[in-house]
Amino acid sequence: MSQATNTTTEFSREAIESVLKRRFFFAPSFEIYGGVSGLYDYGPPGCALQANIIDTWRKHFVLEEDMLEVDCTMLTPYEVLKTSGHVDKFADWMCRDLKTGEIFRADHLVEEVIESRLKGDKEARGIVAEVEEESDDKKKRKKKVKEIKAIKLDDEVVAEYETILAKIDGYSGPELGELMIKHNIGNPATGEKLEQPIEFNLMFETAIGPSGQLKGYLRPETAQGQFLNFNKLLDFNNERMPFASASIGKSFRNEISPRSGLLRVREFLMAEIEHFVDPNNKVHMNFDSVKDLKISLLSKEVQQEGKTDILEISIGEAVEKKIIDNQTLGYFIGRIYLFLMKIGINPTKLRFRQHMSNEMAHYAQDCWDAELQTSYGWIECVGCADRSAYDLSVHAAKTKEKLSVKEALKEPVSIEEYECLIEKKKFGPLFRKDAPKVEEWLTSRTQCELENLATELKDNLKISAKIDGIATETVEIPSELVKIEKNKKTVYVREYTPNVIEPSFGIGRIIYSVFEHCFWTRPEDSARAVLSFPPLVAPTKVLVVPLMNNKELQDATQIVKKTLRLAQIPFKVDDSGASIGKRYARNDELGTPFGITVDYDTIADGSVTLRDRDSTTQKRGSLDDVVKAVMDITYKGASWEEGTKHLTVFESKSDE
Amino acid sequence: MSQATNTTTEFSREAIESVLKRRFFFAPSFEIYGGVSGLYDYGPPGCALQANIIDTWRKHFVLEEDMLEVDCTMLTPYEVLKTSGHVDKFADWMCRDLKTGEIFRADHLVEEVIESRLKGDKEARGIVAEVEEESDDKKKRKKKVKEIKAIKLDDEVVAEYETILAKIDGYSGPELGELMIKHNIGNPATGEKLEQPIEFNLMFETAIGPSGQLKGYLRPETAQGQFLNFNKLLDFNNERMPFASASIGKSFRNEISPRSGLLRVREFLMAEIEHFVDPNNKVHMNFDSVKDLKISLLSKEVQQEGKTDILEISIGEAVEKKIIDNQTLGYFIGRIYLFLMKIGINPTKLRFRQHMSNEMAHYAQDCWDAELQTSYGWIECVGCADRSAYDLSVHAAKTKEKLSVKEALKEPVSIEEYECLIEKKKFGPLFRKDAPKVEEWLTSRTQCELENLATELKDNLKISAKIDGIATETVEIPSELVKIEKNKKTVYVREYTPNVIEPSFGIGRIIYSVFEHCFWTRPEDSARAVLSFPPLVAPTKVLVVPLMNNKELQDATQIVKKTLRLAQIPFKVDDSGASIGKRYARNDELGTPFGITVDYDTIADGSVTLRDRDSTTQKRGSLDDVVKAVMDITYKGASWEEGTKHLTVFESKSDE
Repeated sequence: MSQATNTTTEFSREAIESVLKRRFFFAPSFEIYGGVSGLYDYGPPGCALQANIIDTWRKHFVLEEDMLEVDCTMLTPYEVLKTSGHVDKFADWMCRDLKTGEIFRADHLVEEVIESRLKGDKEARGIVAEVEEESDDKKKRKKKVKEIKAIKLDDEVVAEYETILAKIDGYSGPELGELMIKHNIGNPATGEKLEQPIEFNLMFETAIGPSGQLKGYLRPETAQGQFLNFNKLLDFNNERMPFASASIGKSFRNEISPRSGLLRVREFLMAEIEHFVDPNNKVHMNFDSVKDLKISLLSKEVQQEGKTDILEISIGEAVEKKIIDNQTLGYFIGRIYLFLMKIGINPTKLRFRQHMSNEMAHYAQDCWDAELQTSYGWIECVGCADRSAYDLSVHAAKTKEKLSVKEALKEPVSIEEYECLIEKKKFGPLFRKDAPKVEEWLTSRTQCELENLATELKDNLKISAKIDGIATETVEIPSELVKIEKNKKTVYVREYTPNVIEPSFGIGRIIYSVFEHCFWTRPEDSARAVLSFPPLVAPTKVLVVPLMNNKELQDATQIVKKTLRLAQIPFKVDDSGASIGKRYARNDELGTPFGITVDYDTIADGSVTLRDRDSTTQKRGSLDDVVKAVMDITYKGASWEEGTKHLTVFESKSDE
Repeated sequence: MSQATNTTTEFSREAIESVLKRRFFFAPSFEIYGGVSGLYDYGPPGCALQANIIDTWRKHFVLEEDMLEVDCTMLTPYEVLKTSGHVDKFADWMCRDLKTGEIFRADHLVEEVIESRLKGDKEARGIVAEVEEESDDKKKRKKKVKEIKAIKLDDEVVAEYETILAKIDGYSGPELGELMIKHNIGNPATGEKLEQPIEFNLMFETAIGPSGQLKGYLRPETAQGQFLNFNKLLDFNNERMPFASASIGKSFRNEISPRSGLLRVREFLMAEIEHFVDPNNKVHMNFDSVKDLKISLLSKEVQQEGKTDILEISIGEAVEKKIIDNQTLGYFIGRIYLFLMKIGINPTKLRFRQHMSNEMAHYAQDCWDAELQTSYGWIECVGCADRSAYDLSVHAAKTKEKLSVKEALKEPVSIEEYECLIEKKKFGPLFRKDAPKVEEWLTSRTQCELENLATELKDNLKISAKIDGIATETVEIPSELVKIEKNKKTVYVREYTPNVIEPSFGIGRIIYSVFEHCFWTRPEDSARAVLSFPPLVAPTKVLVVPLMNNKELQDATQIVKKTLRLAQIPFKVDDSGASIGKRYARNDELGTPFGITVDYDTIADGSVTLRDRDSTTQKRGSLDDVVKAVMDITYKGASWEEGTKHLTVFESKSDE
């Protein structure tokens, strides 16, 4: 659909930004108050595009796959995010300039300074072409980097810098600090030394209730609400596995110094799926429907070598070769690909990048990001991670609420299990008020722990333990009080904690990428910009244009409006005095895929013309046929040729 | 559509709560962590119902009326909410029990204690019926009130208490404090005296950015974002007036002690419209479409007399008689009524209550709440206020950004205006560095202020002023430096600040009311509950029920599924082993309006039966005819009789 790939005119970020601003797709929030970085409002066309993308997402994922959608609160108490690990680990590294008070995000700082040095090196070596090509955009993005100096670097330094850039997402804070010292990286504007990187938690904090004593955060992801409702969801699903929940809503990250427009914001719309699956069986019943899709992969091995070579491969083959860990993960990668195609992403600007071992959360088994290429580089827009059983396990452990699945075994199984036998009546006299705590501690040991305790008992005739809530340094339990035995048991039920595969969509980043991928200018006039959104997601589907603004045509226009409203097709009327060409040009910038012109023939025979935004072709037919064509192309996926085959070609009167 | 009004079985809050919980319409958030009061999650059916209500809202308001939808951030900097008045005035009155640390919301406390005393009085007088009828629910809601004591009150005390209750929404904090003293109202559980009411700001506070120095809040309403974007919206609308913006999103209020389930929560979905209109012309072009609607009004005059008598009147007459201030306000009251009818509100449980002068914001011209009757009493669910020019004016004054409309006059008008003429060169020597500030102060005076200054100059030959940013207590400007004259001017353009009519919907409260209004139990079996949602908003439209779970019927079911998916009708399949009757009963509780049974005749001739949830009637026809009936009833507003007239009556095999 998109003409963007066919045009030869050069992409200019300035041109697209000017259109997006002029047409109020989005704008900085609180602009009349000077704005707050990282916060943006969507105007009417941006808001409609977002609603249509969300609607498409809901149909593509939730409805087609019978997912259980939930809507959980953003306000989240401390305790929940402490357990999930966000209080301790959801942080970026920041460095302060103690003289100026400026604050930098450490990884971005290292990246920007090294990139500018490499550029200076290229300039010094006389490799000017690439520098110029990028300079406009890059200067704007990296305005904090002082003017690039053309200084030639040693060959081995260049190689080292390039390796750093390839691995930039994988460094810890102290490692970034070392790089800053080793390569003398300071405030890019002044060169001054900076404080070593310190952690800054990215969650917005607040207090819930009037006492001020219940600490809470704005959620950093929608996932936790889904995990906490696991038992209710399993019950709602009649205890059947596997199943997926889904959630669409705002999340928040208090970014250190957000730039890059919609790509790095402090409040953003997410759409997340948590697919709960048996850890022993990650086969997906619909895998066949995606296995032949060819996709572009950037594996962790390639990146760890400091390279960015792409592997073009079918999903089936990637799973077979274990490049992608399992079928369910592969299935969702395929579904993500198909979704992105529906909403206007250019397939040549999409790759799936695997997380390197050192950038992946410690609990994650495998993780792939759908990255989209924009003028800001390759941007992570969808994450697709296998979170293993981490989240359900930690919440279950913390709340003592089981978050697991019981599966009736087809045949009973005989197993050997350690059991702990306690001489209850001897506990009171020995441990007094602590007796219940010691008992509870013993009975809540895992099989593995019991095995160790059995050995300890055999060797020392007692168990020494540190028990929460008991003041004594070490509690000693003599062997007269407790026996640990391995016994045979017949089991009829298997109980397990599901693993979670999580496709997580950053809707704002996807929307910005759609803008760039759909944007082009007409070759005959670079001032005439077009946003070639697929009709399915375009903010408005039809622009109704009466040839003139007079009574006769107003009546005819009323009929067109009524018909479109009845068919529930979002449309706008432009009955301003501007020329037809101008009115269409305005709506090309809004991405409106169709135009219906009402003229004097409409009064005579009820026919109207239908204009295609991308080709500016016009066809003519009865109002009903034209509306049917719009419906078929917009909602049933017909092409312009198929959809309009019953209409007759119409020669434009030089309106274009 | 709803059968709820026809049934004679008694309403029980316990019964509906049990269904809503069991079917996971909603649940307390973080329940496995013990929950946080005032925070709720929507499960799959609640989430789908909410999405369908929002979709209906968007079509009813935004699309049908060409409103400009925007999506603004929830995070809002201090400055914006300081200007809007929320930092100073968005507060409730709370009283602390200094002994126990308990915190009460003052107006709720007074209301609850007085209600319980009136109940005790009735009991003492032997008027038991009403007390018993309500006692179950009330006890649950007002659990903080200690057991009701049957004590008879003097007749004049009863009258005074009843007047207090009728005016309860109008008292200030100090007035509530006086009532507490006069009527000896303390901690309801212990009777202990409480602290006098103090103000508690209801906004959640947070810090934006890593420095911690930019104070922000979570928005308490979506309106401010719309006001701040006024100029962009006016431009987007090609400078045409009147127009409306709209916004759907979460807002936050840190309620003092939320109970009453979904009716009083700390995080809630709102849908708000800001209709910008010429203050001199509040006529609405579509007013005729609503003027004959009969609605129930409770005017401020009636309430100020301490009464609650309802006036049944057409909107046209109410506007004519100036009961409703203007046409635009009346138009929106009508549109709100029609929207609530679409989504399942019972018209006999809807009234529009006017704000009393003392409960209305000082800037508001008139305000009506759509109140819905529930087992918690009459609940404010939609506010419809004329906010006058307040918001645009204060933001314009603060930011020095004009938020106004320029209208070309048909004929130029001659006016007289004060002008301020300054002897610039004399300012420097006299005021030195303060000179620009004094100049700016003079040139930014309003016409009214200039008139006063002209008099002051004439009388005293100087102006004495306190000027922001100048340390001197009083700045004196002698008459040699400044002249203020009244001059004639010809004006070609009229500039005005629009007034704002704001319909504001609390979606969660509406959803809870829909639950109550649509809930009933089958007269033949009170354990069989039904939620008679209108098909348009029902979470799932169709339950597909294969008679048995075997291969032959599975294949037939596949065809039904495929057909429904193609028609984009949300459906579920229940192929569990439960009896057909049980499966339908389960889905009556979920509010699924239609059932399609797949049986052996389906295999033979492709026909299926269609079941109506409310009447349990069944009809039979070809799959295509049945799907068409579902579409017509759900999306085109056809009744069951109209929609199924091509189907044949089917005698149920005693499944019900």
